[in-house]
Amino acid sequence: MANSRASSSESFSRSQFESLLKRRFFYTEAFEVYRTAPNYKGDNRGLYDYGPPGCALLANIVNEWRKHFVIEENMLEVDCTAITPEAVLKASGHVDKFADWMCRDPVKGEYLRADHLVETVLETRLSNSRMAGKDSKGKLERLDDATVGQYEGILAKIDNYDGPELGKLIKDLDIRNPNGNGKVEHPTAFNLMFASTIGPSSASPVYFRPETAQGQFLNFRKLLDYSQGTMPFASACIGKSYRNEISPRSGLLRVREFLLAEIEHFVDPESNKRHDRFDEVSDIKLPFLDKETQLSGRTDISHMSIGKAVDIKLVNNETLGYFLARVYLFLVKLGADPGRFRFRQHLDNEMAHYACDCWDAELLTSYGWIECVGCADRSAYDLTVHSRETGTPLTVREVRATPLEIREWRASLEKKLVGPRFKKDAKMIEFAIGKLDQDTLEGLAKELADKGVITIPTDELANGATSVELSSDICSIEQVTRVENMREYTPNVIEPAFGIGRILYCILEHVYWNRAHDTAREVLSLPILVAPTKVLLVPLSNNASFKPVIKSLATRLRSLGIANNVDSSSASIGRRYARNDELGTPLGITVDFDTLQDGSITLRERDSTAQVRAFEDEIVEAVRNLVGGSETWEEVVRRLPVFMGQSQDD
Amino acid sequence: MANSRASSSESFSRSQFESLLKRRFFYTEAFEVYRTAPNYKGDNRGLYDYGPPGCALLANIVNEWRKHFVIEENMLEVDCTAITPEAVLKASGHVDKFADWMCRDPVKGEYLRADHLVETVLETRLSNSRMAGKDSKGKLERLDDATVGQYEGILAKIDNYDGPELGKLIKDLDIRNPNGNGKVEHPTAFNLMFASTIGPSSASPVYFRPETAQGQFLNFRKLLDYSQGTMPFASACIGKSYRNEISPRSGLLRVREFLLAEIEHFVDPESNKRHDRFDEVSDIKLPFLDKETQLSGRTDISHMSIGKAVDIKLVNNETLGYFLARVYLFLVKLGADPGRFRFRQHLDNEMAHYACDCWDAELLTSYGWIECVGCADRSAYDLTVHSRETGTPLTVREVRATPLEIREWRASLEKKLVGPRFKKDAKMIEFAIGKLDQDTLEGLAKELADKGVITIPTDELANGATSVELSSDICSIEQVTRVENMREYTPNVIEPAFGIGRILYCILEHVYWNRAHDTAREVLSLPILVAPTKVLLVPLSNNASFKPVIKSLATRLRSLGIANNVDSSSASIGRRYARNDELGTPLGITVDFDTLQDGSITLRERDSTAQVRAFEDEIVEAVRNLVGGSETWEEVVRRLPVFMGQSQDD
Repeated sequence: MANSRASSSESFSRSQFESLLKRRFFYTEAFEVYRTAPNYKGDNRGLYDYGPPGCALLANIVNEWRKHFVIEENMLEVDCTAITPEAVLKASGHVDKFADWMCRDPVKGEYLRADHLVETVLETRLSNSRMAGKDSKGKLERLDDATVGQYEGILAKIDNYDGPELGKLIKDLDIRNPNGNGKVEHPTAFNLMFASTIGPSSASPVYFRPETAQGQFLNFRKLLDYSQGTMPFASACIGKSYRNEISPRSGLLRVREFLLAEIEHFVDPESNKRHDRFDEVSDIKLPFLDKETQLSGRTDISHMSIGKAVDIKLVNNETLGYFLARVYLFLVKLGADPGRFRFRQHLDNEMAHYACDCWDAELLTSYGWIECVGCADRSAYDLTVHSRETGTPLTVREVRATPLEIREWRASLEKKLVGPRFKKDAKMIEFAIGKLDQDTLEGLAKELADKGVITIPTDELANGATSVELSSDICSIEQVTRVENMREYTPNVIEPAFGIGRILYCILEHVYWNRAHDTAREVLSLPILVAPTKVLLVPLSNNASFKPVIKSLATRLRSLGIANNVDSSSASIGRRYARNDELGTPLGITVDFDTLQDGSITLRERDSTAQVRAFEDEIVEAVRNLVGGSETWEEVVRRLPVFMGQSQDD
Repeated sequence: MANSRASSSESFSRSQFESLLKRRFFYTEAFEVYRTAPNYKGDNRGLYDYGPPGCALLANIVNEWRKHFVIEENMLEVDCTAITPEAVLKASGHVDKFADWMCRDPVKGEYLRADHLVETVLETRLSNSRMAGKDSKGKLERLDDATVGQYEGILAKIDNYDGPELGKLIKDLDIRNPNGNGKVEHPTAFNLMFASTIGPSSASPVYFRPETAQGQFLNFRKLLDYSQGTMPFASACIGKSYRNEISPRSGLLRVREFLLAEIEHFVDPESNKRHDRFDEVSDIKLPFLDKETQLSGRTDISHMSIGKAVDIKLVNNETLGYFLARVYLFLVKLGADPGRFRFRQHLDNEMAHYACDCWDAELLTSYGWIECVGCADRSAYDLTVHSRETGTPLTVREVRATPLEIREWRASLEKKLVGPRFKKDAKMIEFAIGKLDQDTLEGLAKELADKGVITIPTDELANGATSVELSSDICSIEQVTRVENMREYTPNVIEPAFGIGRILYCILEHVYWNRAHDTAREVLSLPILVAPTKVLLVPLSNNASFKPVIKSLATRLRSLGIANNVDSSSASIGRRYARNDELGTPLGITVDFDTLQDGSITLRERDSTAQVRAFEDEIVEAVRNLVGGSETWEEVVRRLPVFMGQSQDD
């Protein structure tokens, strides 16, 4: 058949594909015109603007995300600020730990991300070795089998190395900057957050958020109130996030500003993280690549139902499993190819500092496997650190069925003496005592009994000290029995986090193909659900009599909420359709001279280029059904007359 | 009537109103839990998070904006990056001019915005003077009529003063910091952009955009291509923008991070800025407050049709006029009260550095008149400066009906000598010559003839110099005649810019009221179009038999795209409805024991609290019509039986 798809992966040309995306203005490098300016020294790598079709596709993906997750599960969506005070990200660990390792090339003055450097160099050596046999001049080095095995093993767990380990690899394997072959310095940590200050005095440091999650955690109590105290519940947030990548690359895949959509599902840790609706998804088969397989240097995928995966504890719990299945359904609905899809489990060293288990939904592209959605179990990490830092309990309280007796150490201060002795510091000292854990208290009790005085660490006091001495006249530590009628606990958090820009790019690769009879004819088979424009309206020519018909059709479709576009340029109908195949527009309507006679119009489907012809009302009805999902193109072709007229493509 | 609206402005209590918005989590101060942390020194003023109803209202306003402007007019929506290299904002003038004047109080260490300081102090003096008569102890100073007139005159044009003028006012009128009565220092300019650096080397300064406009201008050529060269056309962008306000105040009205929706309508300056669809809006009457009225110290509004306003040149041109009318329709549709609406023209000194005429759509609130939408004619300012800076023509080219002969000065370089003599600097020098205007060239031609050598300013050259000498052997300047078959021009830009957060707040004030029989019963009469939730579903009690009915209703409404919420708490039905009146939910459905018998349910309307009762299908049909706008509540009441049963409010 003339219009059959060329096999996608074999014939795929990334340069042809990316040139389509730029030509049709799906996206462009931001500030491109400035790069040609003389003396321009700015760094605009990793910054992209979406043009009209990219922007519409992005908006459609976001809308579908909102429907599939937020509305379907009654999640509480919030819109939080990106500017974040340093104290918040200090507590969350980002100020100290949200960093990549980079190496400086002192000669070139370049900074290279250490893991990428190792990866690139070893991949080049392996590829050269494979080519060496075919290279008659013998310039390329052939590696022995042991070395090949060693390199492949390193690459399979490249995300598992920390800075010192990467430094050792670079030294041991003599890895150098491919640009100039210079030696690089030892890896140093580079924090990935964009820093600024707020307010006129410059005394208040802030960062632009690297994720939307923190805003949701900080609002936990208000969200719990809003959900009328019901657990479990989920919040959600969609918004731009910022990461100062060391060396952005791979187009839309590693950028410095990106749209993130995150769900925080709060769950009682004593519930086994069961999920109410798990049975709705338990039979869905998913493709898994687990931790053990990766550590053994392999990458083969095993398929099994999510029900079984949770049963055998491959996936830690039902809630995490439920989200993996829902994520799968979501991405496939957008156009992801199930044959190029896997869930990869994070290795231990690779996990973010807050996570205790993590699975990435990855899509295979010409850049390799790309993480599009990360599903992490963040346990109680974030709520705990913010509770401790602020002295505000970010917890759930519920009545116990049977009251609980608890034997515990408790420190108390002689109220009458505290004020006079410590003045302004009194509150801070009480706060410091409140932060002591049971083990510490037990030790201090003994010390207080033995020596009559103990020393407690505090934040900075009025006199500059960071600890205070408490004698037994003002402080006592005793073991007491307490009856708890209420249970108070810190929820655990399961977090599916979606990189919307990455999803958009990977889906575009998955739906791209060339018509077999002419590889210059490119098509984006975007599902109608997310296609930027649903219908192209084409008058046969720029004859004035077509104008009112086109205008009324456009208005009619718009009033039905169906995005449409008119192309009344002088190009041939075939060329106009080809242009819209490149834009992923699934349907086309042609108005010709017969329309003026009998009111009939034609409807063309993008992938097959087949056409039907009927009265306007019937065609509009069919379009409405196709867009709404209540009818397929095959069904339309069966009930409306097929058309083989002048506006055919071939 | 029990449910009539209390007159809104007289009985309005802002503290009661804002407490509702926070209690129902429309929004909250961001990072609120951190403010209670000991030793927290961050500045989180002017940063707000939207909770679930606020976030949904925001999303609905944005969707409606997209429909009303972008889709209706086929605008080209783009999504541009917020991180912006310094060079771009240097060219646009923001690095040098996007600043407010602030005064430091050296004793308190506070920074005060100079115009706000003058405004606050003079308003207090005027208010004290009015009270002085009633103040038996005579503590308050009474001002003489001349001083009152002087102060009122200053306040009417407070936006018209620059820094030195504000400094003079502060000195002459002895204006001091109300907090402590200390003298303040002379005003200094404070740039309002958040600065950071990009990349690992810290050598590349960036700012977070203060507006979305620049991204649209820089993509002008791609946008023009996408619109297939057709003029006029408009682009649009919705996104977060950032301004480091000196002293944020007034809740959501003056914030440091906000959602901006901007349209850039590109138009041929020789077209008189006519607009194709102007006749569709020309009869709409709008409320105007022009420049002259303000400068005479008055604030009275004149009403006239936008057609007349453009005719008498009150509003500069049709395109600007068209947008004023469309903005008016948009805001009124969202719930703005036409009686608290005006278009205020900017005073000359008040206008942004790029604008040549500007009208603000302002809504009257308890904080006074608030600018919600600014409609500026930015002329060719931005495209011109970016063209000049980058050497890339951001222009439109079109074939001339009759070719044009142009006599002009042209400098040319002896190609063969340029390379050898200037080496790396050659390109820069050519660029510098290309930037010279006709007047300069004419002068230089004379100088070159007289002295045989000229000096041209350049960017920094390899030897550190910023100018170059050109002798007549390498450079010639002559008058030539050129025939232009193409016309090349820089479009002008009309820009309506919408502060979405401000619109949201002002509309909430406009739709807020208290039930007359009980002022504690608060209602937000949000139009159904933008209400966060359309329907509340209420089971009479938590009897298990109601659950399946409620669940199936929720699913049915969701499949129709109608946002709904279930409240099955144990509170009385009246209380549950009251809670949802506060959330602005326009419709409520009750399921009771009769439902289980005969399948009938009740539908309640928020503003009147009236109810009808019918079969589920009929009620769902009515809800669908009400949400879709094809039927009004009055029409529903006329055709379905009114219900006066147990779930009544009163």
